[in-house]
Amino acid sequence: MSELRKDPTTRRWAIIATDRWKRPGDLRGGAGKKVKRACPFDPGSEEIKKAAVYLHWEHPEKWFVSVLPNKFPALSYEGLPKMKVKGMYTTIDAVGGHELFVDTPRHRASVATMSLGELEAVLNAYRERYKFWMQDDRVKYVLIFKNQGKGSGASLVHPHTQLAATPVVPPRVLEELEKGERYFKVNHECIYCDMIKDEINGKQRLVRESRYFIAMCPFASRFPFELMILPKRHSSNFIDMDFDELKDLAQVISWLFKRVKEVLSNPPFNSLIHVGPQYAPNLRFFHWHIEIIPRLTEVAGFEWGAGVYINPTPPEAAAQILKSG
Amino acid sequence: MSELRKDPTTRRWAIIATDRWKRPGDLRGGAGKKVKRACPFDPGSEEIKKAAVYLHWEHPEKWFVSVLPNKFPALSYEGLPKMKVKGMYTTIDAVGGHELFVDTPRHRASVATMSLGELEAVLNAYRERYKFWMQDDRVKYVLIFKNQGKGSGASLVHPHTQLAATPVVPPRVLEELEKGERYFKVNHECIYCDMIKDEINGKQRLVRESRYFIAMCPFASRFPFELMILPKRHSSNFIDMDFDELKDLAQVISWLFKRVKEVLSNPPFNSLIHVGPQYAPNLRFFHWHIEIIPRLTEVAGFEWGAGVYINPTPPEAAAQILKSG
Repeated sequence: MSELRKDPTTRRWAIIATDRWKRPGDLRGGAGKKVKRACPFDPGSEEIKKAAVYLHWEHPEKWFVSVLPNKFPALSYEGLPKMKVKGMYTTIDAVGGHELFVDTPRHRASVATMSLGELEAVLNAYRERYKFWMQDDRVKYVLIFKNQGKGSGASLVHPHTQLAATPVVPPRVLEELEKGERYFKVNHECIYCDMIKDEINGKQRLVRESRYFIAMCPFASRFPFELMILPKRHSSNFIDMDFDELKDLAQVISWLFKRVKEVLSNPPFNSLIHVGPQYAPNLRFFHWHIEIIPRLTEVAGFEWGAGVYINPTPPEAAAQILKSG
Repeated sequence: MSELRKDPTTRRWAIIATDRWKRPGDLRGGAGKKVKRACPFDPGSEEIKKAAVYLHWEHPEKWFVSVLPNKFPALSYEGLPKMKVKGMYTTIDAVGGHELFVDTPRHRASVATMSLGELEAVLNAYRERYKFWMQDDRVKYVLIFKNQGKGSGASLVHPHTQLAATPVVPPRVLEELEKGERYFKVNHECIYCDMIKDEINGKQRLVRESRYFIAMCPFASRFPFELMILPKRHSSNFIDMDFDELKDLAQVISWLFKRVKEVLSNPPFNSLIHVGPQYAPNLRFFHWHIEIIPRLTEVAGFEWGAGVYINPTPPEAAAQILKSG
């Protein structure tokens, strides 16, 4: 089992592999050794047939969404997240879950080329798995994320999403919760709701406004063409969405990724969903959202050392370019 | 002039280029267009001749260290760091400095192949520039960092270091200051001093111990073979080092980078120095240190979303491998 370790000198946690860990030859230096093999997510794959499938939806038009356990999970399904403290060092057994969504049977597809039906089915599958994990008391947080393209950290080309269920609320989410709560105490309003109003009025960083959602380039974007999608209606959890909203979200996502692909020549990207913690189904001061990071610049010494990102493209310019398609 | 922007919903800052910003074609997608040109840091380069050199040390054995202004500074030397607040959005003019150290005239050298004399000269140059910036009241923090190799974010092959003088204390440093202060209040001791004692006793994560320094793999290492170098004597600032200590540090650095090069096949890396803020020359609760990050894994959706890093190599194993050379 892996373990979560807390750095005593910072706010940071790491998940450390303690069995089946990687030696120098298995790390990037050994990438040349890679063996070509059949895609495990293609239709008819032996790996999918053998996997303990959590969810499988098949559409009459021949596409499907499948949710499987990750073959190399960072978090273990079995056990209890025991905390051990030894002097200044705190460890928690990395108990929770690590799942994989096969978003579509089409190996060469991407978010930009998936049909609206496919996207809706994937969003629905996210909802199902969020709901499933709400029943597990060991889990404090569920993070859904996606890596696509070379340089994004994705190890497979086939479109897929991941879900990590963790026994602690991750620090990035804690920061947002703390900031949101502080703002609410002073202003009696959700900071995201205020931001959405501001951005709709100002229009400078607004990329798309639909009936239920907005897509924008955040004011302090860390990366060029960084994007955020937020529901206009206040809600701290993804599972609150009704079917009309979900259909609308699929349209916004489809439009946005088509634009990103076109404008930025199909860049690698990471995306993720921030929702409230498992134990807080309805928070007044937190607002769920999707973050999208096209990988166009490298994180380097300055970013690691400062935690400040140098962004060569103002979000106002990025929004303008994405909008004027 | 660029500007520092604070994200209202997180603890994050970004430096946003507001003039001469990059369009999609200038970002990674446009990398194919790169024109080969003479290295601006090689001896006799026109660029060095034309630059306003801040420091130049030439050794009789024909090597030198030069400190120049960065040609594309993220922070501007002129002006005052004015803060502007507009609703929930805070901006500070990115005033300070952005310098470049040409570490050696040898284009193909690296930290692992530089002589001890060269390394000492570079460390001495760091000290001089730290001292220089202490006179500038607009600057709250000086971050010295280094990117080497493809994938590290370095845009030039020639060995170089960078210095960023910023008008705010960066969040990564604030975190360490906060944690250190809290620990000191409870334990009446520097958390780093306690950690150093622990690691010297435990030996598990200790990679090297010299007369004045230790090199170790941190307990909650975010990355495989992440390293930290700390002075054994309590000190919150790099400039406190005397000449014996500096010579010792050069030896530790040389040994360590030779091992990293050998064990990990000359990986790209980032390194950085964390010192106390400019305005606090001597802090009881903070301890300066060097962080070294070999770039062997990709940062992906999970890391961006959680702020938690998945590390496939336990620091105990990494330390063992580096030590047994």
